[in-house]
Amino acid sequence: MPSDKRRKGFSAERELVRKLWRYGFAAIRGPASGAKVKRSVYPDVVAIYRGKVLVFEVKSRGKLQTIYMARNQLDKLMEFARRAGGEAYVAVKVSELRDWKVVSVSSIEIAGEKVKIPKDVIERAPSLHDFVASVLHRGLDEFVNRSEESQP
Amino acid sequence: MPSDKRRKGFSAERELVRKLWRYGFAAIRGPASGAKVKRSVYPDVVAIYRGKVLVFEVKSRGKLQTIYMARNQLDKLMEFARRAGGEAYVAVKVSELRDWKVVSVSSIEIAGEKVKIPKDVIERAPSLHDFVASVLHRGLDEFVNRSEESQP
Repeated sequence: MPSDKRRKGFSAERELVRKLWRYGFAAIRGPASGAKVKRSVYPDVVAIYRGKVLVFEVKSRGKLQTIYMARNQLDKLMEFARRAGGEAYVAVKVSELRDWKVVSVSSIEIAGEKVKIPKDVIERAPSLHDFVASVLHRGLDEFVNRSEESQP
Repeated sequence: MPSDKRRKGFSAERELVRKLWRYGFAAIRGPASGAKVKRSVYPDVVAIYRGKVLVFEVKSRGKLQTIYMARNQLDKLMEFARRAGGEAYVAVKVSELRDWKVVSVSSIEIAGEKVKIPKDVIERAPSLHDFVASVLHRGLDEFVNRSEESQP
């Protein structure tokens, strides 16, 4: 990866971690890639809120556009999520929207060795704010349901 | 940190991640430290097994010995664990034992700005193997208990 693109990618990951931390998550970036580190085995970002685990592949684009990924990148993200008991997402920073879009891996088309996230899927995906609200809200619902179940 | 000590630290972190991955955990190292990265905000390693979150500060020592840490390093580890709904540990690779010792943060003495993990506390701490067995076993117990609770 050219070093400019790489720097831009790291900067987007750091931004996502900062935002998720502000929303109350514990969030961590994976280690930087390099000769000795097989970066691809790690998600770009892992965020956890009270046992609820979200794993992210992070992309940064100037414009809203279709995104392609390597199939094995997605496979590794999903394997991490499976072990963690969490959910996998692709978080796209779209500069022209001045916002993030969070695409669930379950809504992604897989065709052979390539993975395609169509522009319209990204467009319809929730913003980071709406995504976080739905995650925290679901968390609350689960908590409320569990409390009700444990009532005598 | 001198670069030799730093390399040794990273190598221990990578080893811990590999071992935890082999035990079935999703495990990730934090990013390498550097001018732009405040390393200290992240745990060295985060491991997750089906929603059970363990966060680690990693130490590597030649001999079994008392270890000192900065108080704020421990505070950040505990804050990460609190947000994640997880548990915090110091994982010590002890070369002369050819093994790891896993010390629960709850058993660590805090005195002012320094944190002391006495040699005998490390000696009595479980090995990585025994620690993992107890974590996975507890996980199973919790699962069994929950299943029993949901019986009619």
